[in-house]
Amino acid sequence: MADQQAQTALETRPPALPALRWDEPPEGPVVVLLDQTRLPAEEVELVCTDVPALVEAIQRLAVRGAPLLGVAGAYGVALAAARGYDVPEASALLAGARPTAVNLGYGVRRVAAAHRAAAEKGADQGGAAASALAEARALHREDAEASAAMAGHGLALLDELLPGGGHRVLTHCNTGALVSGGEGTAFAVALAAHRKGRLRRLWVDETRPLLQGARLTTYEAARNGMAYTLLTDNAAGSLFAAGEVDAVLIGADRIAADGSVANKVGSYPLAVLARYHHVPFIVVAPVSTIDPDTPDGASIEIEQRPGQEVTELTAPPQIATGAPGAVSGLPVAPLGTQAYNPAFDVTPPELVTAIVTERGAVSPVTGPAIAELCARSRQVPMS
Amino acid sequence: MADQQAQTALETRPPALPALRWDEPPEGPVVVLLDQTRLPAEEVELVCTDVPALVEAIQRLAVRGAPLLGVAGAYGVALAAARGYDVPEASALLAGARPTAVNLGYGVRRVAAAHRAAAEKGADQGGAAASALAEARALHREDAEASAAMAGHGLALLDELLPGGGHRVLTHCNTGALVSGGEGTAFAVALAAHRKGRLRRLWVDETRPLLQGARLTTYEAARNGMAYTLLTDNAAGSLFAAGEVDAVLIGADRIAADGSVANKVGSYPLAVLARYHHVPFIVVAPVSTIDPDTPDGASIEIEQRPGQEVTELTAPPQIATGAPGAVSGLPVAPLGTQAYNPAFDVTPPELVTAIVTERGAVSPVTGPAIAELCARSRQVPMS
Repeated sequence: MADQQAQTALETRPPALPALRWDEPPEGPVVVLLDQTRLPAEEVELVCTDVPALVEAIQRLAVRGAPLLGVAGAYGVALAAARGYDVPEASALLAGARPTAVNLGYGVRRVAAAHRAAAEKGADQGGAAASALAEARALHREDAEASAAMAGHGLALLDELLPGGGHRVLTHCNTGALVSGGEGTAFAVALAAHRKGRLRRLWVDETRPLLQGARLTTYEAARNGMAYTLLTDNAAGSLFAAGEVDAVLIGADRIAADGSVANKVGSYPLAVLARYHHVPFIVVAPVSTIDPDTPDGASIEIEQRPGQEVTELTAPPQIATGAPGAVSGLPVAPLGTQAYNPAFDVTPPELVTAIVTERGAVSPVTGPAIAELCARSRQVPMS
Repeated sequence: MADQQAQTALETRPPALPALRWDEPPEGPVVVLLDQTRLPAEEVELVCTDVPALVEAIQRLAVRGAPLLGVAGAYGVALAAARGYDVPEASALLAGARPTAVNLGYGVRRVAAAHRAAAEKGADQGGAAASALAEARALHREDAEASAAMAGHGLALLDELLPGGGHRVLTHCNTGALVSGGEGTAFAVALAAHRKGRLRRLWVDETRPLLQGARLTTYEAARNGMAYTLLTDNAAGSLFAAGEVDAVLIGADRIAADGSVANKVGSYPLAVLARYHHVPFIVVAPVSTIDPDTPDGASIEIEQRPGQEVTELTAPPQIATGAPGAVSGLPVAPLGTQAYNPAFDVTPPELVTAIVTERGAVSPVTGPAIAELCARSRQVPMS
C-alpha cells in the first residue's frame, strides 16, 4: 500500500528529499520513495508498506535508475522480512519487476542471501530481518561511496582525455542523486567537474519518450547551479557537427561480459555520433552493473514498454499553473497507431572509450579487461 | 485575417482536404490552408484573406514543408496582387517568414517576377494579378508533377539499390501530400513502393519537438493503408543495429551547391547511423530546393526556434476525448531552463547516397553533379 506525503517544491534547494529512504514509523517499517514521475513540479514522497506497492512503483518508474533499483530491491527484501512476509516470494516479485537493469536482481539476491544465512545460523524472524536490513543499509552506503569514487575516477579521466579544461559534456537520461544512494554515476562526474570549475556546459538530452533528461537531469542541474542546456535527442547531431561536445557521459543498466553496454534508448546513436566525430564516449557505472552471466550484447534482454508512451504525451503536474496531478494520455498519433518502444539499446564495446567504475576505469573496453576488473573487485554472494 | 472552417475528422478517408488551395468566394480571393497544427485530430481549414494572415500561418507551422512553402509563397503574392496590396512589400514579408527553406523565396520571386513582367508589358492591375495567379497555379501544378516524377525515380533507385524487394524504409518529419501540391517528396517514394506491393514497413520517426512524424506522417500512412510503425527519434539506432532498416528516405529544405542538405533536425544523426550501418541515405526534393547561391552547408542559415517548443509539451486537440483546442504549454522542465532548438541540421554530401529530383537522381552527390542537374533543368527567372 502506498501513501503520499506532499512537500513544498523547488524553493527548498538542497538538501532535497532523498530518492529513497527506510523509515520506521509506529505503524511499522516502510520504504519511502521520492515519486520521480511528479518531478520537477512536485516533490512528493510515496510510502510503500509492502512489496507489491514497491513493485508497482518500480514498474511505473516512480523509482528508477540502475543503482537505485538495486537499493530499492535490497530494501524491498528487508521490508518483506521485517513485516513477516514470505521472503523468497517477495524476492522473486521484486527481481522480476523490470528485466534490463542487473542491479535490481543483485540487490534482491544479496539481501535475500543475508536473510537466509542468518536464518540458517539460527536467528529468529526478528534477527533474520535485522540481518536483511543491515545488508540493505550496507548496500545503500556502498552505493553512495561508489558514487564518490566514480566521480573521482571519471573526472581524472576527463582531465586526462581533455587537457584543455572547460569540459562541454553531453548526457542522456538521468544519472544523478535520483538514481543512487550518493550523487549518481555519469551525472556525479559532471557535478565533480562543475565543483572544480571545469564544467563549461552540460548538454542535457530530453530523453524521449519519458523525458527523464528534461524533467530530472535539468532539475538536478538547476539545484546544483550548473550551466546546462536542454535539447531534443535528435538535436545532439548538430552539436557534434559544430564541435560543441567534448565528451559524452552516460550510465548503464547492464554491462555484458564482453563490455557491451545496455543503457537508455538513444545511447547507441550517441555512441555512433561520438565515434564519427572522434569524441570520447564514457560509461559510468558501479561494478554491480557488470553481469558476468550475460556473455554479450545480443544476450541482454531489452524491456519493451507500452506503445502509448510514444503515441500519447504525458506531462508532469503543471509547474506554471500549479494544477495538481499529471496530465497524461494526450493522444498525438492517430488511433490505432502502433509504436516500437524499447526502453534501452545496446552499445558494443568497440564504441565505448572507457567504462568508469568505483574501482577505476577500463579502457580500452574488452572482455578480458572487464573480467580482470571484476576479479579485482570484492565479490559478494550472488547465489 | 484568418477564419476557420471545421470539417469532420478521420472518418472521411481520401480524398482528404488539400493542404492548400486558392478559392474565390464572393467576398474576394483567399488562400485556404489545412491547419496542420490540428492534425491528426481535426481537419480544419484556415482561410487567409491577406498576406499577414498567411505569414502568421507559415510561422506557426499551420502550413509547412519545403515544396508547399513555395506554393504558399506563390499564392501569397497572387493574393496580394488580386486584392490590390503592395506586391513588393507583400513579397518581402512572405519571403522572410522562415529563413531555411529555399522554396519559399523561390515561389515568391517567381510570381512577383510574373506580376512585374505583366505590368511592364502594360497590363492593368487586374491583368497583372491574373498573370501572378496563373504563375502560382503553374508552380502548383509543376510541384504536383514533380512529386509524381520523384516518386518514379525514387522507386527505381530503391529497386536498384535493394534488389530483394520488400523495402523497410525509415523516414523523418513529414514529406507527403501535406507538403506538396502532389503526393510529396520522400513519402511519395514510399507510397509508390506501397502501391507496387514493395513496401514492407514504413518506420516513422516521431520528429521532436513538434512531432510532425507522429502527427502527420502517421496520418498520411494510415490514410493510405500503409504498414507503418511509429518510434521516438532516438530508437532509430536500435532498428539500424537490428538490421531492420533497408533505406532512409528524407526530404530537404535547402540543398547547397556542394550537395549539403539542410533538413529537419535529426536528419544528420540518421545519415551518420546509415553510413555506420551501410544503409542508403536518400534525399528526395524538387530541383527548386537546390540553391546555387549557397555554396556549402556552413552557409545555410539554420532557423532557431523558441526554447518553449522543448521545455513545454504541446498536444494537438484531443483525439480520444474530442475536447476542442490544442493542449499547449505544459511545462516539462524546471522554470528558467534554456533550450537549444535548431529547426534543421545539415548533412554533408559525403553522407548522402543520392539526391532524387523530378529530373532524375544524382549519385554520388558532388558539386559538379549538382551543377549539371541544375543546368539540365529548365531555368526560371530568379531575379
